[in-house]
Amino acid sequence: FAYCGMPYFIEGRVERMSDLLSLSPAEVAERGIDLRRGHEVVSVDPGRREVVVETAGGETGTQPYSDLLVATGGRAVTGPFDVRDVDGAFTLHDMDAAAAMDAYIADPDEYDPDRADVSAVDRERVDHNAAQPAPETAAIVGGGYVGVETAEALRGRGLDVHLFQRSDHLLPPFGEAVGDRVETELESKGVTVHTGTPVERLTTTDGRIDAVAFGDERLAVDLAVVGVGIRPNTGLLNGTGVDTGPGDAILTDEYGQTSLPDVYAAGDCATAIHTVTGEPAWSPLGLTANRAGRAIGSTVAGTRTPVGEIAGTAVVKAFDMECGRAGLLDESAAVEAGFDPVTETVTAGSRSGYYPGAAETDVTLVADRDSGRLIGGSIVGADRAAVRINTLSTALESGLTVGEFERLDLAYAPPFSPVWDPLLVAAKVVNGSLMAGDR
Amino acid sequence: FAYCGMPYFIEGRVERMSDLLSLSPAEVAERGIDLRRGHEVVSVDPGRREVVVETAGGETGTQPYSDLLVATGGRAVTGPFDVRDVDGAFTLHDMDAAAAMDAYIADPDEYDPDRADVSAVDRERVDHNAAQPAPETAAIVGGGYVGVETAEALRGRGLDVHLFQRSDHLLPPFGEAVGDRVETELESKGVTVHTGTPVERLTTTDGRIDAVAFGDERLAVDLAVVGVGIRPNTGLLNGTGVDTGPGDAILTDEYGQTSLPDVYAAGDCATAIHTVTGEPAWSPLGLTANRAGRAIGSTVAGTRTPVGEIAGTAVVKAFDMECGRAGLLDESAAVEAGFDPVTETVTAGSRSGYYPGAAETDVTLVADRDSGRLIGGSIVGADRAAVRINTLSTALESGLTVGEFERLDLAYAPPFSPVWDPLLVAAKVVNGSLMAGDR
Repeated sequence: FAYCGMPYFIEGRVERMSDLLSLSPAEVAERGIDLRRGHEVVSVDPGRREVVVETAGGETGTQPYSDLLVATGGRAVTGPFDVRDVDGAFTLHDMDAAAAMDAYIADPDEYDPDRADVSAVDRERVDHNAAQPAPETAAIVGGGYVGVETAEALRGRGLDVHLFQRSDHLLPPFGEAVGDRVETELESKGVTVHTGTPVERLTTTDGRIDAVAFGDERLAVDLAVVGVGIRPNTGLLNGTGVDTGPGDAILTDEYGQTSLPDVYAAGDCATAIHTVTGEPAWSPLGLTANRAGRAIGSTVAGTRTPVGEIAGTAVVKAFDMECGRAGLLDESAAVEAGFDPVTETVTAGSRSGYYPGAAETDVTLVADRDSGRLIGGSIVGADRAAVRINTLSTALESGLTVGEFERLDLAYAPPFSPVWDPLLVAAKVVNGSLMAGDR
Repeated sequence: FAYCGMPYFIEGRVERMSDLLSLSPAEVAERGIDLRRGHEVVSVDPGRREVVVETAGGETGTQPYSDLLVATGGRAVTGPFDVRDVDGAFTLHDMDAAAAMDAYIADPDEYDPDRADVSAVDRERVDHNAAQPAPETAAIVGGGYVGVETAEALRGRGLDVHLFQRSDHLLPPFGEAVGDRVETELESKGVTVHTGTPVERLTTTDGRIDAVAFGDERLAVDLAVVGVGIRPNTGLLNGTGVDTGPGDAILTDEYGQTSLPDVYAAGDCATAIHTVTGEPAWSPLGLTANRAGRAIGSTVAGTRTPVGEIAGTAVVKAFDMECGRAGLLDESAAVEAGFDPVTETVTAGSRSGYYPGAAETDVTLVADRDSGRLIGGSIVGADRAAVRINTLSTALESGLTVGEFERLDLAYAPPFSPVWDPLLVAAKVVNGSLMAGDR
């Protein structure tokens, strides 16, 4: 199931929930995989090399293994907000929540039950939500990926949308240059953004959300979405003594192996090696998971295959604004990793100035003063900005210095880039700062 | 003057020729540069360290130098086609030609003389062309960058456009996968593409183009554009004994220095070091020229600065199709450079399949069998394909193997990329071929 597609399902760009399915149980079986649905692994005994399984029917048994992959994913946290059993309050982290929220937003007379056309969906919950009156005003708690993407989705459904962010900037992992552009973009598209505004609680009337409270204020809403982060699901390994790492995720090595013999972990529950620091990091994203799954499968099947390092690459769409980030952007994180960061942000055109459609593109690059090595950066702009971050990711994985980066032979043609790509303009400025000894 | 902008001026996307000027003479003077217009350097005497200058007024003198930069650019070649003094026949390589062609295309009653608002333009030639009846059918001879971009420009002006290409594929440096997609795109936009069709001659009536002749056929046209290539302008150094390299361009080292003492060369007249082969190559493009100019300026001013290597990166727009290439794509060129090339082409989506707007993107990657090193590739597609080539350029300059490339942490978000970026999909296939020992 494509978790990342949920906001676009809510928005209505994706018509059917089944469009988000990657593989059906039948397709899994065709591949010769013994898929056991309704079988929950409740504990692992690494000494006996077996797992304890409870079936949906209530039976308990054990299953021996020679190799074990733990791919238990992550879960949405809700902080102080209890969304359970509150009508109109949601976290957006699984199919059931997406189907329920979609049904809740629709006018009861217009809801199309075929939208949630996946058999595994909690049909009772969908029906309950479909019967609720359509909401008009939404509060989103949390200005990270989920919050920003959901804001766009809910505007697409015609709601009055308020986005609340505890800190002063949206999308903190993307840095302030990106967060500020995204805030402007959201506001220009009719989203009311409340930065520096911690929501304290959700209030209800008769079991239905009626307001969010912050400071001395409250805002009446009839939909609340809580997107304040996720945590790795590691409970299954409690008591096994497995080593954990950043974010309390399961610590893994370059082959995805945990500290337990022949036990691997991959995806949102596991760490991965960060290419800039060389240290384990927790960056729960889709490619990291997919790549580790494939690599561990190869390793277990006999071809030892590294899972690959992560560069902390991430991209996100906020209406017409495309955002990307990679590496270490945060100054304190860079210092903690032993670097002396020099950071510069430039604004450059996305195309030759005379070519229509050139868009202001902000690029931030961070380099280490001593070594000159590039350690991170971000980009934001309305014209093909997001995929440009891959240039930086590739440079980070290659260990390029800013000087080397500045001399990259990047593409130029008036419709796509000025002679000096915005990334090269930024590199030139950072290199200037390094040479001048500025900070 | 932005040469690369000429097709967009012809098309009308760029309103005024002055929009294509980078710097005015006054701005040059403001920078403290002694600009001498109407002064032609006619020869160089490296022994005496002086150049011979002829002024527009007919005077001849000498100018000593301590360092000399030769930046004489390139010139359009016309092959067997003589476009001089033929009404309606053009090469598109300078401001005068662009202004004249633009005037020729316009209806005499509707031509806006302010379009050619640059004082240096040959006004008499513009006026002569503006008085000609507007053409209806155009032949473009040559299916390279200029040909493809001009085809789009002339369609934009409402002409019936025929594009003739001697070989079987458009845009040969981009490889067949790109050329074939571009041919389909041009045809779908109403351009008639004649591949494998060498034009033999242009015919005239009363000094005006009336047809192009090919094989036993002729096509009546009232506009012909010849874009069959450019050559470096090196005549100035004839007799100096300067070393030349590929394309008969002036051979330069990593600092842009020629074989003559304190004589540098940059831009379309000079070679640059190719990052994949480590050998000099001739790739007359904008960034190479700009970068070398800046670097040589720094070197001459006392800070020795390498001009940077080229990866042969190029991008071009063909209506809605975005094309990119980098490195060595041609099998024989790769073999000649000492590689054992393994080439694979894949078609992958540009976005998650469920996200609207996903476009089929063809990626070709070439690797060396022995070392596994990535040596070249191309990309073509309608959705943000062009700037993705920078990922490959960066990998080429970093000397990555296909295995390393396959594990790059590239960006994923449904609106911008599938979990596996098309470049990663291609890398996986090439790596599979390398491991299987296929060819």
